[in-house]
Order: sequence, then structure tokens, then C-alpha cells
Amino acid sequence: MLLSRYFLPVLKEKPVEAQVVSHSLMLRSGMIRQSSAGIYSWLPLGLKVLKNIENIVRFNMDASGFVELLMPCVQDASLWRESGRFDVYGREMLSFKDRHDHDLLFGPTNEELITDIVRNSFQSYKELPKVLYQIQWKFRDEIRPRFGVMRGREFLMKDAYSLDIDMESAIRTYDQVFVAYMRTFRDLGLNAIPLAADPGEIGGELSHEFHVVADTGESTLYYDKKFDILGDTLAGDINQLKSLYAATEEKHDPDNCPLSKSELSVRKGIEVGHIFNFADKYSKPMNAMVNDSNGRLVPIQMGSYGIGISRLVAAIIEVSHDERGIIWPMQVAPFKVSIINLNIKDDKCNQISRSLYNQFVDQNIDVLYDDTGDSPGAKFATHDLIGSPWQIIVGPKKAGSDLVELKHRQSGEVQDISVDSAAIEIISSLHVK
Amino acid sequence: MLLSRYFLPVLKEKPVEAQVVSHSLMLRSGMIRQSSAGIYSWLPLGLKVLKNIENIVRFNMDASGFVELLMPCVQDASLWRESGRFDVYGREMLSFKDRHDHDLLFGPTNEELITDIVRNSFQSYKELPKVLYQIQWKFRDEIRPRFGVMRGREFLMKDAYSLDIDMESAIRTYDQVFVAYMRTFRDLGLNAIPLAADPGEIGGELSHEFHVVADTGESTLYYDKKFDILGDTLAGDINQLKSLYAATEEKHDPDNCPLSKSELSVRKGIEVGHIFNFADKYSKPMNAMVNDSNGRLVPIQMGSYGIGISRLVAAIIEVSHDERGIIWPMQVAPFKVSIINLNIKDDKCNQISRSLYNQFVDQNIDVLYDDTGDSPGAKFATHDLIGSPWQIIVGPKKAGSDLVELKHRQSGEVQDISVDSAAIEIISSLHVK
Repeated sequence: MLLSRYFLPVLKEKPVEAQVVSHSLMLRSGMIRQSSAGIYSWLPLGLKVLKNIENIVRFNMDASGFVELLMPCVQDASLWRESGRFDVYGREMLSFKDRHDHDLLFGPTNEELITDIVRNSFQSYKELPKVLYQIQWKFRDEIRPRFGVMRGREFLMKDAYSLDIDMESAIRTYDQVFVAYMRTFRDLGLNAIPLAADPGEIGGELSHEFHVVADTGESTLYYDKKFDILGDTLAGDINQLKSLYAATEEKHDPDNCPLSKSELSVRKGIEVGHIFNFADKYSKPMNAMVNDSNGRLVPIQMGSYGIGISRLVAAIIEVSHDERGIIWPMQVAPFKVSIINLNIKDDKCNQISRSLYNQFVDQNIDVLYDDTGDSPGAKFATHDLIGSPWQIIVGPKKAGSDLVELKHRQSGEVQDISVDSAAIEIISSLHVK
Repeated sequence: MLLSRYFLPVLKEKPVEAQVVSHSLMLRSGMIRQSSAGIYSWLPLGLKVLKNIENIVRFNMDASGFVELLMPCVQDASLWRESGRFDVYGREMLSFKDRHDHDLLFGPTNEELITDIVRNSFQSYKELPKVLYQIQWKFRDEIRPRFGVMRGREFLMKDAYSLDIDMESAIRTYDQVFVAYMRTFRDLGLNAIPLAADPGEIGGELSHEFHVVADTGESTLYYDKKFDILGDTLAGDINQLKSLYAATEEKHDPDNCPLSKSELSVRKGIEVGHIFNFADKYSKPMNAMVNDSNGRLVPIQMGSYGIGISRLVAAIIEVSHDERGIIWPMQVAPFKVSIINLNIKDDKCNQISRSLYNQFVDQNIDVLYDDTGDSPGAKFATHDLIGSPWQIIVGPKKAGSDLVELKHRQSGEVQDISVDSAAIEIISSLHVK
């Protein structure tokens, strides 16, 4: 992408309304723009990150054999009356009437709608187990939206729903999703802690939250220090994962904690995922039944599984930034490399920049070429702010000797390197990842 | 995808509520499920088609240098008060209040919101021209939703917005989008007619609609027969496109038509795109101004450009089906090939089917392997219904001689072919496309 043709409205000033660093950096880097309290437009740079995260989540869902569908944003209130949640969900549900005075709502979650779909589609235990998922915008009318997309009102969520014939099978499926979640967070470059949790309004008895450790988190996490040591090597081993102590504030009981103080990490965290098994809480009142192997009609055992995709954008920034801006993990970076042409009136700079740009485009690598007339200082500030993992700086002096500067955003290391080697070094670093 | 693990709830009966063939076939093939009047869930098969169309639209937008962003579904009514449309848009707008009694609406279109974004982002003519686009769900509270996703209430639209410094530049941009649209419809396998149109509530004087010719269309089209003859060879030539007569019902004046009766096609059509230049209709009241080359503040000249993505799914089916089901054009087909195993208890059938399946998966070709215990008759009906362009039928008799049947859905031609040649034939047919 040529920056001159892109739409990247970066802000020079720190926005006064931002209380957390991710909100500030997302506004400053032109990723989002607020359109109403807790409701944001995703500008091109922000949308690229959102899609990269979405694709990593989708990859891990598909690899687990889960099947994607897409439910509408607007739901019929009648389904929520069947489950009994319409009147108890509270004012976080945005409900309204259409022109025919029919009650509708903007879905805050989809247990009712998926139950309606499956009750008309499945007859037999032979068609189960199944996990269906979607990636769709939700709305929760937070009384006090804050922290940008971290606690917004309209937000993008991956929500999955599992269907099993009995509780034994349902727990096997629950564990499969658990592992898929750990892999997803690992692939996003995050060390997520899975904590035994309170199911809350969704219902059921078995529930885990997944949190990213960050000082700006709103929740307090209590967990075995082994999580910090073992890190994402845990991602595949469900038995070990479940054997290690970890609990949310609501669940943690200091008097009954199996760990000594020295074994326990107490940290702040940002919730990025939540999974539930709620048995027949929705299938029973909504009559979602199938025949079991004895020919008896039984309610489908269900669970639901959420990942906050738009919130993950902010969570990743909270754990990966410095005073100059965002430091994207390679996997989610909107641009893997920025080419910074320091003098667009210099033929040699233009020729080198353009040739490097074409190499990345040919390799299908997301590259941003700063071909604007901005000053060198402004360009350095912009590309540090937007956090491309690599920067290639093309200046007139070094260009004369066919050299460029290669800067690694995370370490800050800068090296002089020949034009030919710069692209090779970056491309090979991408293939290792 | 293994059909046994997929979610494909096909219906045996014709749904009584469906008045048009696309609605009926989308319900029967398990592509969609209605959740409320004019509001649909997209089941896995339907979602795949929707995404294929979305990607073809996106490819052509990106190739034209247009930049993608994403605006929220829920908009602030205050912006629509600024433009003056809040009180005149009418009851097709779904508006509601949040818990703080603040007026919101589910966006039926986004002229106001994009104008709000750009008025705070652009200062100078040097940053123009620009075309920004999104692919996002919209809601129009149709008084009588009908024909499935053809005239639904919640629908997926690609909407683009152009920003130019003056009318001369704005018309150049308009023509660029015009050509991008013709290429998009060509790539979707459609012959679309661009007709001079009435701008209606969006405003402005310059407008074209794009229609797919179909007997079930709701509009009457009047156009030069050369469109039928030249077809998609016209896709790149804006001058020729604009020189040929074509008008919608509202625009066509029989007394002033430049064509004789024998030169004129009068056909029914389905509207799949609509483009507008509306000059400063929104930028002026909303104060979206930039400096021109003389340093004067002038309102940005704007246009908007829509493609109905969810409607296109239905439109393609209207023009491409037979009495047994859908016939997908290769580009949008959810599965390029179905492998139909006639006897899953036969080792040889299983081994051949699985080996073919793996070849397609390795080549990243969307393949559906029918590994269910359904009868051969039921399987033939299902795969004709869901319209995969190719079917490979693996039966026990021919399998003994390492032969399979290769069926071409569109022509109905069936040939015996060696197992090795079947995959080669299909893969080479895909690469030609």
C-alpha cells in the first residue's frame, strides 16, 4: 500500500478522552474513530488488525472441525421469551420495535437463536457432536462504555455453540474448545490464563474465563505460577491445563486455595474469552430434542464459547507497546514492514524504495510504503506509532552506496544493510514465524 | 469438508412460503433459515457463497485503489439530524433509543457517517481523490419483506464513498467505480446492464443502476440490444458503456427514446448495484470542507456506490438453476466438486473417495465428500440441489476397474473416467477459469 493513497489519519496529540494506553494508541494511530459512546468505526489500519485476528481465530476453529455460519444482528424477541431471558437480561440488551410494533433486539449473545436453528435441524444422536460458530457484531448497552473498544457497546465476537447427546460427550467437546482457545491465544502471540469461573447469566455450572495478564486489566487473577513459567507450551495438554489451579476473583477462596502464597500469582487481567457448559438450560424450555441410541427423545446438551475479537485488538496493544507507539506481534501486524523514503525528490531513494516495495508485494507481504512529503521526523514518529515490526529507512546519503537502514521495531536495533539483503532478511524472518 | 461433519440441513419438500425460485432453493439447500420476517441466518453453505461474492467484490475494489474500512451497524441519530434526513427518511429506518434515552438507528446507508469521518480527517485537495468502502450489514424496515434475501430487512451491502475536490474529478472517479462494477459483475459470471437512473432519496443528479436480467425481476429495463450481444466485453470501456442507451422504468421516456423498437430490449431485471454522484448534498450541511489549490475552503464533492452482496446470492440463483436445483458459476460455488460415495461400506469406494478428497484438499480446492449413509438417490438429489459444478460418483461396480463417473452439473454430461484422470480434469478446468 502506498501511504499517499491510503487513509491513515494519525493524531499528533494524545486524545484527552483516553484513559488506557490501547485506547489512546488506537485513536492516535488512526485505527478507530468514535461515532457515538462505545461505538466505533474501524479505519483501514484497525480493520486490517481486526481481520488478522479474526483469521487466526477462524483457522483454529476450522482446524478443530467446528463449522462456521452467520446469524443476523437483529433477533426476534419471541425466542428470548421462550427461554425466559427477555425480561431478566436487563438493560444491557438493546431492544426495540419495528414498524409493525413487533419486538426485536440487537443480539448481545446467541444461545436462543442457535437453539432455534438446531431444534429444527437435528433428529438423532448420530448427527452429534457438533460445534457451530460465527464471527458477528454484538451489542451490549453498557451503562458506562469506556476504554475504547475494550468495553465498547458494539463489539465483534466469535461465539461458538456445542451440541452433544449427553454430559460425558459435552465435557469432551468442552475440552476440545478449551484446547482450541489456548492454541488461538498462542497463535496471537499471547500467554492466556484459563481460570475456573462463575457462569453468571448464561447459566450452567462449568465455566472458564481466559485472561491476558496486563496491569491495566479490570479483573484480579489467582493462578499457579507454573502458568507463567510453562507459558504457551501448555496449549495442547488439557489434563495439565485443568490440573493447575487458576480462578477468577469471584471463584477464588483464599481459605480453600490449594496453593501456598509463594506458588500463587496474583495479577490483573483482561478477559478475552469465556466458555460455558450449560447442559439443557436452553434446549429444554425451547424443546431442542433428539433421539438417543435407545430411541428416547432427550434434550441436546449445550455449551457456548466466546472470544472477544475487537477487545483482543486492544488487549494485544496493552501488552505490547512502548512510549512511541504500538509494537505489533508479527502475526497480527497490519503491515509487516514500513518502507520510509526520507526524500521523495531524490531519484535514487525513489528507485530503491519502489524496488523494495515491489519485492514485498510480489511475495504477498503486507507492506506500507511512505511516499508522502512529510518530514523525516514526522515519518519516524508515524511508523513507530503504527508499529510495523520492520522498518526500512531509505535516505539519500546511504542510498548512494546502495545501503538502507533496517530497524527492528521491538528491539529498536538499527543496522546498515545492502538493499538486496534487506528484503531477504525480512522475508526469511517471516517464514521462520 | 466431510458431509458427515458438516451442517447441511436440506429440505425434501418445497417450502410453501417461497414465491421465487431462489428463495425456495436457498431454503431447500440449507443455505439460509429465516429467524424473523426478512431476517435470515446464513447456514454454512450460504455463508460460503456470501463470502465468495464478498471476496470478488473486494478484489475489484482493492484493484481500483479503493480503501476498505468498517463502520458500525448502530449509528447516532444526531448525524442524520445534521444532514436533515432523520425526519424525512421514513419508516424504513429502524430507529430506537438506548438506555440513556439517546436516539440511535441501525444504518440503512452511511452517507452521514462517512461524511463525519472525512470532515475531521482531510484538510487539503492534495489528499483527494479517495474512495473509501465497507462491506457491512444494513437494515431497512421494509413494510413487506419478501422473496427471501432478495428483499430482506437485514442485508449485506458493499457501500463505497468517493471524495473529490471538484465536479470534474468527481465524474472521473464515478466512471472508475462504474468500470469496477462492470468488472465485478463479469467476475461473478453475470451480464449486468448499467441503466441511467433516478437518484431518489440519496440525492444528486447523476445515477446509474446495475441490473441482472431475469424474468423474476421486479423492475423493467429499457436498453440497447447491443448490451445483449456485446456482453461482458463492455466491462472495460467506459465511453462505449455510457454511449449505449439504457434506462430504468422511471427514467425511460418512450417518446424521447433514441432507439427504434427493433433496437430496444425490454426486459425484467434485478437491481444489484446503484451508484450516485450527489455533489455537496451532505458535505455542505455537515461542513466537510477542504482547501482547494487556491487556498479556498470548498465542500468535498461526494458520491456513493452500493452493491447488494446478499441479494446477489439470490440473483445468481435466479439466472442459474434448473428443476433439480442450483447451478453455481465456478467462481462463487461453495464447493467446486462433490465426491459422492455410493456405498460407504465398500472398502474400494472408501479408498478411492478418500484419495480423491485428499487431492482436492491438498490443492486447496473446496470439496464436499458425501460420506453419509444416505441412499444413492438421496445423494444424487442433494448434490444436484446444492449445485457443485462437478460431481464425482464413486460406485462399487466401476470402482473395481478403478473407474468413477464424472458429472458436469451444468451440461448434465456424465462420463466414465479413471480415478487418476478425474482429479486432473477438474483441477485443470479450475485453472483455466
